[in-house]
Parts: sequence; structure tokens; C-alpha cells
Amino acid sequence: MSQNLFDNSEFFEKYKALRDKAYNYNNLVEQPAIKALLPDLSGLKVLDLGCGFGSNCTDFMKRGAAHVVGVDISSKMIDVAKKENAGSAIEYSVMDMMDIPKLSHTFDLIFSSLAIHYVKDFAHLVKIIYEKLNPGGILLFSQEHPITTAPKFGPVWTKDDAGNRLYYNLADYMVSGERHVYWFIDGVEKYHRPLSEILNTLISTGFRIEKVVEPLPSQDALEKRPELADEFHKTSCIIIKAIKD
Amino acid sequence: MSQNLFDNSEFFEKYKALRDKAYNYNNLVEQPAIKALLPDLSGLKVLDLGCGFGSNCTDFMKRGAAHVVGVDISSKMIDVAKKENAGSAIEYSVMDMMDIPKLSHTFDLIFSSLAIHYVKDFAHLVKIIYEKLNPGGILLFSQEHPITTAPKFGPVWTKDDAGNRLYYNLADYMVSGERHVYWFIDGVEKYHRPLSEILNTLISTGFRIEKVVEPLPSQDALEKRPELADEFHKTSCIIIKAIKD
Repeated sequence: MSQNLFDNSEFFEKYKALRDKAYNYNNLVEQPAIKALLPDLSGLKVLDLGCGFGSNCTDFMKRGAAHVVGVDISSKMIDVAKKENAGSAIEYSVMDMMDIPKLSHTFDLIFSSLAIHYVKDFAHLVKIIYEKLNPGGILLFSQEHPITTAPKFGPVWTKDDAGNRLYYNLADYMVSGERHVYWFIDGVEKYHRPLSEILNTLISTGFRIEKVVEPLPSQDALEKRPELADEFHKTSCIIIKAIKD
Repeated sequence: MSQNLFDNSEFFEKYKALRDKAYNYNNLVEQPAIKALLPDLSGLKVLDLGCGFGSNCTDFMKRGAAHVVGVDISSKMIDVAKKENAGSAIEYSVMDMMDIPKLSHTFDLIFSSLAIHYVKDFAHLVKIIYEKLNPGGILLFSQEHPITTAPKFGPVWTKDDAGNRLYYNLADYMVSGERHVYWFIDGVEKYHRPLSEILNTLISTGFRIEKVVEPLPSQDALEKRPELADEFHKTSCIIIKAIKD
């Protein structure tokens, strides 16, 4: 089974507090960038991998999706999703995303926001996503950028005496594999893959790459959170849109 | 007109000495990786952008290409190419690669090795390459990796007391544009583009991305040049194969 980080109580509470902040990276940078790549969802069947609190699932329903399935390995997350983001067209399941072959439907869009860097076997995930997509279907996902996941050891920024970030300490970019990082709690497991590995896995599985986005904060986002200017040195996430031709 | 770095005498002599070394990065890492992506060249028409001393042009001829055109902005480079890498199927021209619309042929393969990071207007270059390719034609090129071209200011590695490279000082990755670096001489102009910009330019022009390679040294290459182990921290070049569908 995959890591179930979000059912750790300490982690869960701290993560929820972060996401509840109005001005976090996800809301200000990642979400506008990935949403800009959504197709017209009218009548489509959508699967959200690592749906978390389900806010994207309700958004997909509002955009006209005929059916939305949100899966997350964390029962705590799905409990919140069912309370806060229920909808007539939405179905939630506590499920490891590696288990999606068990789902009875196929989908027109498979979506995932900032979850796939937790997946150990990316090639297998891409294969089962491909099988679960209808012809012409879209895979749209964000994950931590390989530049961000690369270093095995921190601290990852070099700062000047005033605490300003001068540069990002990049190491181990070409060394695929597990990384243990501190994020609210010790020993969070992530998987680093160079960007070429991610892209070639998609292509060799049968996907056509349609768009690759390294999102930047807007002027408005920079005013709300000035430290997002660091994104110009080192981008935190990557968004990929790929088509099953 | 584009920068004509290689006609600078001081630069040219130092560059030639580097390339004459048996164990340089190009020979040990970049060349095997890009050559591995070549199609069967039998009967094909090939254009080499920034052909330099012409060694790839003779290789293409040996691999069966029907016609090879090598262009380089540097007359010094083309002089060497004509002496050292002449061939019945090879034609050399002193030409800025932005001027390829003047060529009368179209091509089945347009190739470029470690030259395109000198090009200011990448979108225009991709457009004229696309127009010069036959349907189904291939663009295969390497260039300095965006991680490598990103920083505006050096030094770019942080070393320990013994001089070992600990990490690469990444900055300005998301800031596209000109970079002035020291490479044999001061003020060498390069152009940095984030990887997403490179890929999306290719895709929006009409190319399908077939392969993206961040090459690593082989065990044999590491034995010949142990300092190539730094490539595991920060890859120096990227190779892209794209198809005109």
C-alpha cells in the first residue's frame, strides 16, 4: 500500500490549517495555472486522484461534469470531502490511487493536483490511468517540480545575512528515487524523477504531451505573498496536460 | 545578425583545443546520447544547424544520408569543416541558422548539437525549422539544459573545503532571456528559456514531442573523466526529439 500521510493526525491538522489559509501557494499559483488547462467539462466523466478535501470535485461539477469520482487514500480527507464538498454528481472513495483499475467507469478527464510525487511506481500509475481514459481523454496533473523534489539533503536554500534567498541548492537532480523530507512531520516520503523520466514515461505509454507549465505567481499573488518571488529562482510545481490519442 | 562567437580568434583556438581533447563532455556524454536517437538515415536529406567542424555531417553521410547540408555562422568553423570533413554528399555554408529559409531544399531530419542556446528568437527558429521539414520529418537537437543556462550570476557551484562540488547554485530559472557568461572569453551571450517554454514552443508550432533526454555519463565515461559525476547533481544538456506530424 502507498504511504498514507494524511491520516497521521498531527500532519493532518497542520496541513488543514495551511490549506485553510486564504493565501497559500496552492490557491495563489498552482490552482489558477492548472484550472486554466481544463477543457470544457460539460457532460464529461472526471476522476480526481488524491482529491483531498474535494474542493476540485465540486468545481468540476459546477463546470458541468456529468459524473465526478474523487479518490484519496486518507479516510480523514474523504470524511471532510463528504461533509464540505458533497454533490449529486460526486462520488468519493477511500482508495489508494494505484487501485483505480477496480473502478467500474472509464473517464474523459483524469485529474490530479500535487499528489503524484508521493507515488513510487509512476510508470505503473501512468499505465492504469491510460487504461481508465476514454479515447481522446485527457490526463491533467500537477506535482512538485523535479527541481523541488531533487535534493536528498537540506537546507535547500542559501540565504544572505538578512535572510533573503540567494539561490536554491540543487543536488541529485538526476538521481531518481525516494526522498525523505520534513513537512510538518519527519520522514514524509516523496519520489523524485527527473523531468525527462516523467515525460518519456507518458509518451512511451501512448500519451501525446499537449502542454507543460511551470507556473509563476501573478502580480496580485506577489502582493498577497511577497515570498512567492522565490518562484522565479526555482519553480515549485510542474503541470502536465497529456492526451490519449 | 546572430552572435558570431566562433570567429573570435581567441575563443576559436581555445574551443578547438577543447574539442580536440579525446575526453570532453561532448564526446563522452552528449554525442552518444543524441546519436542514439537518430533514425535510419538511408536516403534521407539532413540539415545540421551550427555544424561546427562538420564531424556530424560526415557521420550522417556514413550512415547513408543522401544529402547533408551543414550551416554555421562562423567562417573559421566552416573552413575547418571543408578541410577535415568533406564528402561527396555534403555541402557546407557560412550561414546564420536564422537564414535557413534561403536554402532551396527541404529536409527529413534537422539536427543541431549544442548550438540553439545561442539563439535569441527560439520561437522563430522553430517556425522556420518546421517549414523546412518534410511531413513526418524529425527535429533532433541538444542544447545546454535550462538548469545550466538559468543563473545570471556565478559562481554556480558551492564547494566544500576540499573543492568537491556540494550543490549547484540555481537561480533565475523562471526568468527567460539573455545571459552573459565567461567561457574562454568574457561576454559570451546565451539565451535561457525554462524547459516548459522550449517544449510548449515546439508543441504550439505543430511538433509532437517524441523523446526528452537528460543524458548521464556511462560508467566508462566516469572512469575517463571522474568529474562527470557532477552530472548527477545537475545535468548539463537536454536533448529533444520532435516530429512534424
